Amino acid sequence: MRIGIDAMGGDFAPVEEIKGALAAREHLLPEDRIVLFGRKDALLERLSAHSDWESFIEIVHCEHVITMNEKPVEAIRVKPQNSMSVMTQAARDGLIGACVSAGNTGAFVAAAQMNLRRLKEVHRPGIAVVTPTYHGPVVLCDVGANVACRPQHLHQYGVMSSIYSQRICGIASPRVGLLSIGEEDAKGNDLVRSTRELLRDDPNVNFIGNVEGRDLFRGTCDVMVCDGFVGNVILKLMEGMIGGLVSGLLDELKTLAGERIEVMRSAAKGLMTRFDFNEYGGAPLLGVGGICIICHGASDWRGFKNAVRVARQFVQCNINDQIMEFLAQGQRVTNG
Amino acid sequence: MRIGIDAMGGDFAPVEEIKGALAAREHLLPEDRIVLFGRKDALLERLSAHSDWESFIEIVHCEHVITMNEKPVEAIRVKPQNSMSVMTQAARDGLIGACVSAGNTGAFVAAAQMNLRRLKEVHRPGIAVVTPTYHGPVVLCDVGANVACRPQHLHQYGVMSSIYSQRICGIASPRVGLLSIGEEDAKGNDLVRSTRELLRDDPNVNFIGNVEGRDLFRGTCDVMVCDGFVGNVILKLMEGMIGGLVSGLLDELKTLAGERIEVMRSAAKGLMTRFDFNEYGGAPLLGVGGICIICHGASDWRGFKNAVRVARQFVQCNINDQIMEFLAQGQRVTNG
Repeated sequence: MRIGIDAMGGDFAPVEEIKGALAAREHLLPEDRIVLFGRKDALLERLSAHSDWESFIEIVHCEHVITMNEKPVEAIRVKPQNSMSVMTQAARDGLIGACVSAGNTGAFVAAAQMNLRRLKEVHRPGIAVVTPTYHGPVVLCDVGANVACRPQHLHQYGVMSSIYSQRICGIASPRVGLLSIGEEDAKGNDLVRSTRELLRDDPNVNFIGNVEGRDLFRGTCDVMVCDGFVGNVILKLMEGMIGGLVSGLLDELKTLAGERIEVMRSAAKGLMTRFDFNEYGGAPLLGVGGICIICHGASDWRGFKNAVRVARQFVQCNINDQIMEFLAQGQRVTNG
Repeated sequence: MRIGIDAMGGDFAPVEEIKGALAAREHLLPEDRIVLFGRKDALLERLSAHSDWESFIEIVHCEHVITMNEKPVEAIRVKPQNSMSVMTQAARDGLIGACVSAGNTGAFVAAAQMNLRRLKEVHRPGIAVVTPTYHGPVVLCDVGANVACRPQHLHQYGVMSSIYSQRICGIASPRVGLLSIGEEDAKGNDLVRSTRELLRDDPNVNFIGNVEGRDLFRGTCDVMVCDGFVGNVILKLMEGMIGGLVSGLLDELKTLAGERIEVMRSAAKGLMTRFDFNEYGGAPLLGVGGICIICHGASDWRGFKNAVRVARQFVQCNINDQIMEFLAQGQRVTNG
C-alpha cells in the first residue's frame, strides 16, 4: 500500500510532515511506501540527514504551494502543480491508496472532489471528526466541508458516519443523533425538522432523534450530525475551551506550592493529551471516491504519523463500498 | 422598584424560586419588593415557614402553569392565566419593573413579545448570555430566541449587546466579533457575509470582523454575534464539556490518594464555580419593551438571587433607551 502525504500543507511544513513520515514506518508493512508530495529540493535536503529513508519514502515533486489564506478554487486553477492536486490525481490514477494533508482545508476538499469525484449517490462529501469524550468516541459530521447543507446532505452524513463509527471505532450499532436545540420534534430550525424525517425512515441508520450540544459529552450517541458551519464552530470552540479551562485550573491552584502544583501540572497535561488532535490522526472526507484524511493545520509529527495509521485502516476497511451500498438501499427505500 | 419572579417555571419550582426570593433581600433597598407569580396556596405554604417575608415579598396568584415540553404559543393560548403571561402583563402595566423566569424559554420569549412588544426599530429580540472566560466576560447573542436569523437581526444583536457589555460589564468600547468559520472575509455562509457589511458600516459598533469558536476563550472580543441555533448549541456544548473535562481530570488523578486528591477536588470545584450559570444571574432578552431575565431551567436559589441583582442593574442602566437611540442612528446611516 502507498500512502500520500502533502508535504507542503501544514503550519510547520515540511518539517513536521517529514518527521511524521519517518515515524510512520512502524505502521507500515515491508511492502508499504509513504509518498511525499512537495518541493523536491526542500524535502531532499531534510531527508538526507536520515539514513535508510529511501527504503520506504518516495518523493513526487510539485512546483506549487497553496497557502492557508488563498481562495481554494482560484488557487487550484492558478497553481495546477500544487501538492494537493498532484496528490489527488495520483490517487485517481491508482498510484497511491490514500491522501493525507494538513493544508488549506477548502483547497484539499476542492482538489479531492475535482480529481476523485464523489462516490455514486453522494450529494456532498462531509468531514467527519472523532471527538474523544469521557464516554467514548463520538463521530461529528460535517465539520466544515459544506456550509450550505440540505436535509439530503445531513441524512447522508448520518449514513456515512455510522459506517465510519462501526468499521473504525468498532461500535456495533452506532446511535445517530441529529444536533438540535431541544430533544422535542418541533424544536430546531427548518433544516433539522426536514432531516429528522429522512433519518427516521432509513433502515440503515440507528436514529435516536434530536440531541443537544451537551450530549456530545454524555455518552448519548456515537454519531452526531450537523451542518458544516455549526460543526466547525463546535470544533474550534472545543479547542479554545480546553486551553481556557486548563488555564483556569492552573490559576485556581496558583496559591499552592511545590509538590502540589506539580501534581496538578501533570494532571492538566494528561487531560490535554486526551483531547489532543495530534493523537487522533485526522478526519476523513467521507463521500469522495478515494481516501482523503484531513489533518489539523497545526499538526506536529505525531499528527501525520497517526494520520498514516488511520489512512491504512480506511483502505483496509473498504468503507467506500459500504457507503455506496447503503446509500443505494436508502435511495430505493425513499423512492418506495 | 418591584421585581417579578415566575415562581412556577424552573426545574425545581417553586422551592428554589422562593429560596432565591428570600435570599435576594440583600440586593434590595428598603422600598423594593419581590413579586412572586404562581399558585398562591403552594407559595404561601412554603413562605409561612419564614418570618418577616411579608415585608418585602408579594404574591400574585396565577391559575396556570406552563411546563418545559409544551409548545410555547399554543400553551400561552390554552393557559392564559399562566405565570409568564400574567407577569409580563404586570410589567406592561407598570406594576413591576422587571421579569425573571427559569421556565420554558420559548414561552417566556413569546409572552414577553406579546405583552411588552418589541422596542422601536427592533426586528427580533435576542437572548444575550455573559460567558465567563479567563480573559473576562464575553456577551454571546443570540443563544436561542431566533433560529431563523437574517442579517438585520444579527446586526441589531451586535448593537444591543455592545450596549449591554458597556453598561453592565463596564467595558468602555466593546469589541464586536461576528462568529464564522474563518477570519477571512470570504469564509462563512451567506448570513455571515451579508451581516459583515452591516456591522462594518455601523458607527455605533466597534466591529473587529469575523471570529472563530476558539476566540470565545482568547480575549479577542467582548461581544460575539451569532444565529440563535448556533448560540444555543454553543451554550449547551460548554455546559456539557465542563462536566466532561472535570470528570476526565478527576479520572487522571484517581491513582493519587489522601491529601492530593483533596487538593484536586477543591480545584475542580473552584473551576466549576467560575463557569456555574447560577453565579451569573440569567440572560436578558434584549429588544423587548421591558426587562426580562431568563434563567437556566436548572437554576437553584443562587440563580434567582443573582437574577434579581442583574434585573436591578438593567432597570437602573436605562439600557432600552440607548438601544432605541443607537438603532435609530444606525437606521439613518444605512438609509444615507
